[in-house]
Amino acid sequence: MPEFRKDPVVGRWVIVAEERGTKPYQFGEGWERESSFPCVFCPGRESCTPPEVFSIREKDTLPNERGWRVRVVPNRFPALLPCEPLHQYIDGFYERMSGFGVHEVIIETPDHYLDLVDLPLEQIEEVLRVYRERMRELGEDPRLRYCLISKNQGEKAGASLPHAHSQLIATPVIPKKVQEELKRAREFYEEEGRCLFCSLLEEERKKERLVWEEEGFMAFVPYAARFPYETWILPQRHCAFFSEIEEEEIQSLARILKIALSAIKALLHDPAFNFILHVAPYPRSSENYADYYHWHLEILPSLCKMAGFEWGTGFYINPVVPEKAAKALRQFIKDKS
Amino acid sequence: MPEFRKDPVVGRWVIVAEERGTKPYQFGEGWERESSFPCVFCPGRESCTPPEVFSIREKDTLPNERGWRVRVVPNRFPALLPCEPLHQYIDGFYERMSGFGVHEVIIETPDHYLDLVDLPLEQIEEVLRVYRERMRELGEDPRLRYCLISKNQGEKAGASLPHAHSQLIATPVIPKKVQEELKRAREFYEEEGRCLFCSLLEEERKKERLVWEEEGFMAFVPYAARFPYETWILPQRHCAFFSEIEEEEIQSLARILKIALSAIKALLHDPAFNFILHVAPYPRSSENYADYYHWHLEILPSLCKMAGFEWGTGFYINPVVPEKAAKALRQFIKDKS
Repeated sequence: MPEFRKDPVVGRWVIVAEERGTKPYQFGEGWERESSFPCVFCPGRESCTPPEVFSIREKDTLPNERGWRVRVVPNRFPALLPCEPLHQYIDGFYERMSGFGVHEVIIETPDHYLDLVDLPLEQIEEVLRVYRERMRELGEDPRLRYCLISKNQGEKAGASLPHAHSQLIATPVIPKKVQEELKRAREFYEEEGRCLFCSLLEEERKKERLVWEEEGFMAFVPYAARFPYETWILPQRHCAFFSEIEEEEIQSLARILKIALSAIKALLHDPAFNFILHVAPYPRSSENYADYYHWHLEILPSLCKMAGFEWGTGFYINPVVPEKAAKALRQFIKDKS
Repeated sequence: MPEFRKDPVVGRWVIVAEERGTKPYQFGEGWERESSFPCVFCPGRESCTPPEVFSIREKDTLPNERGWRVRVVPNRFPALLPCEPLHQYIDGFYERMSGFGVHEVIIETPDHYLDLVDLPLEQIEEVLRVYRERMRELGEDPRLRYCLISKNQGEKAGASLPHAHSQLIATPVIPKKVQEELKRAREFYEEEGRCLFCSLLEEERKKERLVWEEEGFMAFVPYAARFPYETWILPQRHCAFFSEIEEEEIQSLARILKIALSAIKALLHDPAFNFILHVAPYPRSSENYADYYHWHLEILPSLCKMAGFEWGTGFYINPVVPEKAAKALRQFIKDKS
């Protein structure tokens, strides 16, 4: 069974999940969509995945049969298991915790051949609604503290199947990186009396790092981008929880996400990428995340590799000046529209 | 010119170094040693690199000519420059710093066809002596706070040239990851009155994660290994600074490093890997690193990719149980010896 182990030197949690070692990678020399069609995420092969936990589907169609537009299933090779009881142990000198958690896959389209960016806007909106629904529903389980939704597209970004999908993982602990963001955001709020991200929005609107604005959303290349063409999308409305996104915001987000991903795809020749939805933890304590946190989405094109320097320092070396990356993206979008 | 930029959300420094965008990658489909021989690191091509800053060479041979056994040159595509004056700026809402620092390459052998692990012990010792010398010498510059030596072997680990080499980067700030380690180590020392790493050595000696012991050194798979077959090498003698390593320790370290890397190479079919020398910062303040820090070397085989989950959480998913990885390495070494 999977378990969490805590590194005593830096307090980093690692999930040891032997089950995932047997995960099939449809990559390598033959990494092409054709080599894996029909795949386990394709319509008609619903029985190849664990039974679905949620779907948006045509009227009068049954779960685990054809007719779905977006489908959520437990990961076949889960890093965490919802059936595990939640236990913490002292393991001599060390600390560990049972591998309780939720690990799901959100299949974004029945079409094996389309990337998220190529889907019609209405379908991207459906995917975003499913993100919201899953976050909301898992929030009902008081043992879960955090829900991370992210997307790995392409082999270099860690994807193991080409059929368009996102990953959801919900954990009983607040992840280290989330805690770091929360800490800074709270400090800023306490010192300045306003939200750090709202200030970023104000700063970036007038600046040369702006990529695009849509009703209610802004896309920009951050000042200290780790990677070439790294792009963040922030809602204008201050809100800590993606689960509280409103219907018209879903529509704007779908538009700006499609615009940003299209520009990255075209300019960088269809690179692998990750995107990560940064949200506040579930509100389980007196901590008032709503005041000082601001959900957003970070897109990280996989153009550089982590090397010894990055592992050893936590610093990054970015060979593309953020202002130049933003200008190229902005220009591309303007020319297209 | 390169510059440091600070991310306002998590306080992470990024080096924006446009010059590195033009770096030639000798990889891709033709990534084989032959495709790049003779390379810029080969004997006879000394003029293809910036002039050497240090070398170990045969008597009566001249700098920047043949006859060297280990050669240190400034990186041709530096992320940081020693000629930059050290300045910090407030950039409106943001913070940046001039790209002052040192970025060198340590060419480990004149032989284009040998990996570090394949070198004779005497040559590995020479490389380790060069690490020590460079760390010592750069410590004389009071503007430098930290010196990181690491090795990227293979394309997946971020290497851009196949000829065996290590990287040195010295920075005017103490890196984030180093600060995290120092913080925990100091807390542990204050609470327990002893060194965290000395305690780890005690714990791992008796445990099933031990890989190998040599006079004065121990190699083990850490309890919360991030990656399959991650291996740490620690000196038995408590010491914060690699620059204080003694002659007989150099010999032991060369042996255990060769043993560990040979086992990883054979068992995992010559994987790409990084290793990182974790040392205390240069002692510039009243902070007493010598008490609570303990230098060590971390070997990270590049068998998994960073995906959205790792980027978003800072957690890792390791599909190989550390005890099993250690057992396989230990068994392999025993069978060979």
